[in-house]
Amino acid sequence: MTTPLRLGIAGLGTVGAGVVKIVRQKAALLTERTGREITVVAVCARHRERDRGVPLTDYAWEDDPVALATRDDVDVFVELMGGSDGPAKAATEAALDAGKDVVTANKAMLAHHGQALAERAEARGAVLRFEAAVAGGIPVIKALTEGLAGNEITRVMGVMNGTCNYILTRMETGGLTYREAFDEADGLGYLEADPELDVGGIDAGHKLSLLAAIAYGTQVAFDAVELEGIGKVSIDDIRQAADMGYKIKLLGVSRMTGRGLEQRMAPCLVPATSPLGQLDGGTNMVVIEGDQVGQIVMRGAGAGEGPTASAVMGDVMDLARGFRMSTFGQAAASLRPATPARSATPAPYYLRMALMDKPGALAKVATALGEAGISINRMRQYAHTDDAAPVLIVTHRTTRAALDSAIAAMRATGVVAGEPVALRIENV
Amino acid sequence: MTTPLRLGIAGLGTVGAGVVKIVRQKAALLTERTGREITVVAVCARHRERDRGVPLTDYAWEDDPVALATRDDVDVFVELMGGSDGPAKAATEAALDAGKDVVTANKAMLAHHGQALAERAEARGAVLRFEAAVAGGIPVIKALTEGLAGNEITRVMGVMNGTCNYILTRMETGGLTYREAFDEADGLGYLEADPELDVGGIDAGHKLSLLAAIAYGTQVAFDAVELEGIGKVSIDDIRQAADMGYKIKLLGVSRMTGRGLEQRMAPCLVPATSPLGQLDGGTNMVVIEGDQVGQIVMRGAGAGEGPTASAVMGDVMDLARGFRMSTFGQAAASLRPATPARSATPAPYYLRMALMDKPGALAKVATALGEAGISINRMRQYAHTDDAAPVLIVTHRTTRAALDSAIAAMRATGVVAGEPVALRIENV
Repeated sequence: MTTPLRLGIAGLGTVGAGVVKIVRQKAALLTERTGREITVVAVCARHRERDRGVPLTDYAWEDDPVALATRDDVDVFVELMGGSDGPAKAATEAALDAGKDVVTANKAMLAHHGQALAERAEARGAVLRFEAAVAGGIPVIKALTEGLAGNEITRVMGVMNGTCNYILTRMETGGLTYREAFDEADGLGYLEADPELDVGGIDAGHKLSLLAAIAYGTQVAFDAVELEGIGKVSIDDIRQAADMGYKIKLLGVSRMTGRGLEQRMAPCLVPATSPLGQLDGGTNMVVIEGDQVGQIVMRGAGAGEGPTASAVMGDVMDLARGFRMSTFGQAAASLRPATPARSATPAPYYLRMALMDKPGALAKVATALGEAGISINRMRQYAHTDDAAPVLIVTHRTTRAALDSAIAAMRATGVVAGEPVALRIENV
Repeated sequence: MTTPLRLGIAGLGTVGAGVVKIVRQKAALLTERTGREITVVAVCARHRERDRGVPLTDYAWEDDPVALATRDDVDVFVELMGGSDGPAKAATEAALDAGKDVVTANKAMLAHHGQALAERAEARGAVLRFEAAVAGGIPVIKALTEGLAGNEITRVMGVMNGTCNYILTRMETGGLTYREAFDEADGLGYLEADPELDVGGIDAGHKLSLLAAIAYGTQVAFDAVELEGIGKVSIDDIRQAADMGYKIKLLGVSRMTGRGLEQRMAPCLVPATSPLGQLDGGTNMVVIEGDQVGQIVMRGAGAGEGPTASAVMGDVMDLARGFRMSTFGQAAASLRPATPARSATPAPYYLRMALMDKPGALAKVATALGEAGISINRMRQYAHTDDAAPVLIVTHRTTRAALDSAIAAMRATGVVAGEPVALRIENV
């Protein structure tokens, strides 16, 4: 038996406490599976006295995560503090500079600094792993980086923010408005301190950008993700979509095209009976398409103590087994800068707007679409009592650019009230 | 850059040819991802002259797989011949004895000799990997062995034989009898040389037993898998199930219980709208449940050149990266003998039989069920023109043992014609 693998854990929220519990309660199983004892030697968090449901007195306490990360008796720095910068980044950098391996669940840090951190790790021969940063307990980073490594990846898609999915599901099943569902999720503690991270699609966009880096061998390009939040989705949209056999999901899609890398995180209509359409509540789903394997779909819990701790432990156990590889599945220096391409793959679109009650208003909308080369699959105008009539249009396949120019033309005619809502329809 | 990883490939059917194609056509990608060149040095197959759609003249040819497996210039023996014994086993043993790593797609060999081969590998410090043996392109072995290694696995389920799923799907969508669908699958080349391997559930049972060994840390116990084939499923069963909102799938379930290891591969009714129910044609699905992660579902192509070659390459690339681990995820010596437990987890059952047209016949059946402690959820007797009336019963939750005793009691009354069909209902 070799020497124990010694962990220093920074951040003792539910995930950190969950990791400590697994290490304590499953010691024999972990050793049996990895051939090596795994121990916690030191921990660090903001509030030392808080009861976290697990005894911590066996471990050294550090107030400073950088001090924890660089302790001589720490082999692996487990970063579970969160935040793209600040202490998480400082401690991760310090650990890597000290040649220590790092396991993190921090999608924001990697989305913003992934390339620099990967280079830093490799400069010192350290390993940086982040399974827990994407899709909670689903071992999707491992699948993409290792199991499917013989494929050229052609597309990666996913529903990867459980909070958004919860809000959309509650709007649909409970008939709640967006605001009501948002408040309910907030009351349940599902939202990040900055809710825009969730509902603005930023958190899910972080995850998509990490998957894309691995899939296409490109440097993480979070800033190039086209982001649309779910705040514009109304209960009307949910109902109209349901009428047509669709559900609305915050769906991420990335694809390498001849023009560059497309990355999009936006609410979309997906068939209600499809695997994505059936995804309710906090469950995540990731779809990977490769030239050899075809389509692989993975589903599981996207957050929570157990699932996220499971992902952290997967990375820790790989290190205990001596598995060493580059952060994004190939040497950081070989990752190419991504050429962002605004997503141009055509799709049908769902378009909802309020039309002024004026003669010829509908004709002007139809003309604007026709002049942009967009043909209409179906159109409905609903009965109304106020000055503006709700109009719903489903187009045939078109590009987002053509649609945006049609919307601009419609608005220039002055017959459209407010901001039209355009949602892509993904028949996946 | 280190020295190349040199493969010797035995078996040049579609999968073997597919592996050669990937190594030839994606050389740069493979090296970029693993940091090591991967080359084929020698190949072996039964018919040297056959055109396999890929040039083989760059590689040494061996007529004898054992000679291939033990060549000095082979680092990894890739076994794609198939067959539980014979040349595949002899060559695998020879490779391991020579300290060479082995990658195989051979579920039959591992189901029958997995423990002995794992011990043999470890005795020489060799690695034996078999991702391609289970569920084609789905990286499920990797998920179970590595990504979810921090979990106690509580249940593993799966639809893992595409041929059976194709036959059942065609009976349903095409209204074909079992025999017609079987003949269609045969005509398309989907069936093994011994069709019983497919339709008898043996092939799927092999796969289930391998997953169970990893999941529960037990020695492979294929002989303890309760096997039922799909041959008893009739078009009537498919239709009745559909009427009730179910589809029939050849479903494997393994579970560690207080009494021992349950492993069952049998046609079951699953809800038509569930992920398993929506699985059509050759697609496979594996469901893994762990104490931390909850439920993980993985779906993908279960066979075919690209998907299977993708799985082989995943293993090869792990070896190129220097990942070394025990065959079943822990040292062979630490795998415990499985204590087989006949599956006793209660479930509702679907029961179809032909009743003699005699007064009191239905009462006798109902009495037999009642005396076995089985309550009836619903029962239908159908109009009939011959001497025997089709009767369909759905029970409340009961054990298979209780059901079997009730069936024996019914048959003893002499009112049941032929063999009743009993299918478990899995509401997953």
